[in-house]
Amino acid sequence: MNIGLFGYGVVVSAVYEVLNHTPSLMASIAKICIKNPNKPRNIGSEVFTANRRELLDDPAINVIVEMTDDAVAAFEIVKESLQNGKAVVTANKKMVANHLPELISLQSLHNTPLLYESACCASIPVIRNLEEYYDNDLLHGVEGIINGSTNYILSKIFNENLSYPEALKQAQELGFAESDPSLDVEGHDALNKLCLLLAHAYGVIAHPSTLVCHGIHRLNAIDREVASAQGAQIKLVARAVKQPNGEVAAFVLPQFVKPPHLLHTVRNEYNGVVLTSALADEQFFYGKGAGGFPTASAILADLSALRYDYKYEYKKLFLQEPSVLATDVKLNAYVSFQDWQMLPIDAFEEIHEYYSGKSFHYRKGVVSLKKLKASDWWKQPGVSLILQDEAILKEQRK
Amino acid sequence: MNIGLFGYGVVVSAVYEVLNHTPSLMASIAKICIKNPNKPRNIGSEVFTANRRELLDDPAINVIVEMTDDAVAAFEIVKESLQNGKAVVTANKKMVANHLPELISLQSLHNTPLLYESACCASIPVIRNLEEYYDNDLLHGVEGIINGSTNYILSKIFNENLSYPEALKQAQELGFAESDPSLDVEGHDALNKLCLLLAHAYGVIAHPSTLVCHGIHRLNAIDREVASAQGAQIKLVARAVKQPNGEVAAFVLPQFVKPPHLLHTVRNEYNGVVLTSALADEQFFYGKGAGGFPTASAILADLSALRYDYKYEYKKLFLQEPSVLATDVKLNAYVSFQDWQMLPIDAFEEIHEYYSGKSFHYRKGVVSLKKLKASDWWKQPGVSLILQDEAILKEQRK
Repeated sequence: MNIGLFGYGVVVSAVYEVLNHTPSLMASIAKICIKNPNKPRNIGSEVFTANRRELLDDPAINVIVEMTDDAVAAFEIVKESLQNGKAVVTANKKMVANHLPELISLQSLHNTPLLYESACCASIPVIRNLEEYYDNDLLHGVEGIINGSTNYILSKIFNENLSYPEALKQAQELGFAESDPSLDVEGHDALNKLCLLLAHAYGVIAHPSTLVCHGIHRLNAIDREVASAQGAQIKLVARAVKQPNGEVAAFVLPQFVKPPHLLHTVRNEYNGVVLTSALADEQFFYGKGAGGFPTASAILADLSALRYDYKYEYKKLFLQEPSVLATDVKLNAYVSFQDWQMLPIDAFEEIHEYYSGKSFHYRKGVVSLKKLKASDWWKQPGVSLILQDEAILKEQRK
Repeated sequence: MNIGLFGYGVVVSAVYEVLNHTPSLMASIAKICIKNPNKPRNIGSEVFTANRRELLDDPAINVIVEMTDDAVAAFEIVKESLQNGKAVVTANKKMVANHLPELISLQSLHNTPLLYESACCASIPVIRNLEEYYDNDLLHGVEGIINGSTNYILSKIFNENLSYPEALKQAQELGFAESDPSLDVEGHDALNKLCLLLAHAYGVIAHPSTLVCHGIHRLNAIDREVASAQGAQIKLVARAVKQPNGEVAAFVLPQFVKPPHLLHTVRNEYNGVVLTSALADEQFFYGKGAGGFPTASAILADLSALRYDYKYEYKKLFLQEPSVLATDVKLNAYVSFQDWQMLPIDAFEEIHEYYSGKSFHYRKGVVSLKKLKASDWWKQPGVSLILQDEAILKEQRK
């Protein structure tokens, strides 16, 4: 394997370091393409270039590892690499989630593999296991904490009583959150990963923009108290759950989670995914979902898989009847709001409980996913929507 | 796939039921071989036979699922099936652990797959992940609770204050332990599974009889109190851990486990495996490790893998430099004993703490795995050996 690397961040240098210590992989890095090749680095400068053509046009390079933070450039690079018969390993969840249909057809057209285990939960081998191990007919649901930044922030809020701004600042200082945290805290990163899970769990190819998604940026101190009062923490949960009619309900929303829910045990920057199936019941995969070395670990596993010609077959899409997304899903929700005008009259299908105070009100009851999708009152400042511990109505779960 | 099934217990009927509800697998059960075909059952009698030749000699049967409880007969069946080019899926950990060298060479000689995911931790895909996903050079250790019966018994003792006989009886009544529980409570079942983990994690092929193993049958009520006093539970832990010199220390021994050790969260009949690696740090796989449906789930995953010609490549054995077993390993241990005569004078390398009462004494300190292997004073009634929370001396862990 003769590797061309794009991007040079903490993950790339971890990959570089590890490849040099893994002779059994028989892989070497021929060239690294970065924006600024003249910046001083701890690797010899001859390996760097700012010109992507030196990698893409080099016939000796047969594997591209793509780790830029630019989804547009990444797609161009991946597309051209596949067209030229170069296998690709990428960590770019946004790029994959946004271009899945093209990427699937490019792979099949050029018979060239594209692997992206590191793009979802970093070191946790969830994509590979969904693809290879869990038979669609029997998989009832995938529910996970798949964004480390938000889970770190929420853990600090609940376990150490930090405020949201304090927790966010700490996450940024430790490198668990970006300087522009919106991709994480608004749920988009988890949503991109959910799209990858959907493809490999159920053969559902959905563009992120078509799914209901909300982050943790609207949570307020009283929501936190409401959670604690019921023995719960708030977690940002991504899920794809089969309905009795065979359709799959998929969304990213904050949720009250209490013991013995396995996701309650997921702390700080860790990720955890619960797979529920007819036979195996609940299975739980837990590990580091972000960071240089955990991401490098997944990239290495993908490189290792390339060595024996592994490729995703998208089994649930091509070898089985793919599932379709559910639209008519009822959710158990809590909505807090500062002002009655913020809440549409038909926000709830059923109301089970309500509270009204001087400057803070909440309702608990049943909301419709379809209506959430069609509106955005629940995203405005001053409103906070959180799913209950039993998020999807029992009779709607397979 | 045209399947011939051996054995008819709770797992077989689960497999039968599930195959009939999984049309996408395109598999059908042609024949089931059992000891007593005339016993009334909930499946049509024409599918049953007591004559194994009706399966082994039928050229139309191309897959054998072997689920008998007889390791000797199982090996004959599996051997002949592989020789005749029939793919085999087995749940028989004892048979696989005892015959791994022959089974590996039979597979390669006849180019026919033998899969046994269900033989280790049932539904948890740990064999497949070790084989495919974790690169040997980077895997520091595998530590797991891989026997559901003993974990159920220990959970009841610690969480519900049952005595050992009470907890054992309950486990037997619920089907979590056999009527002859020795295979489980003496640690042999966990040991057999550890041999499978060793092969796929490190390319180490070890016969179970060569490894140090102890169960939970010697634990007494005072050990339980000592555990509780230090905030720990006792768990039966199987482990394969890389030493700084590259050798692998492997054994099954009871151990004090306290939070935040991930194995502390494994309750009742569940299994959990922690994989520690250089890059991904700790990863945790958790799920049901026994029972009809969880085992059927793994068998089904293996059948599904046969459909696309999956076979174990024993990568760590053939494509890398396999590791060797460590002999010189020092362990942090606690030993309780009723009588001073039970304890050899050189039992401990170092003593850190001791207690002496009227009819009960214990010592804590460092013991040598090599000496344990060469002696059996620590297995006699009235003696109980339990590893400390930090089981292997820190400087001996990679």
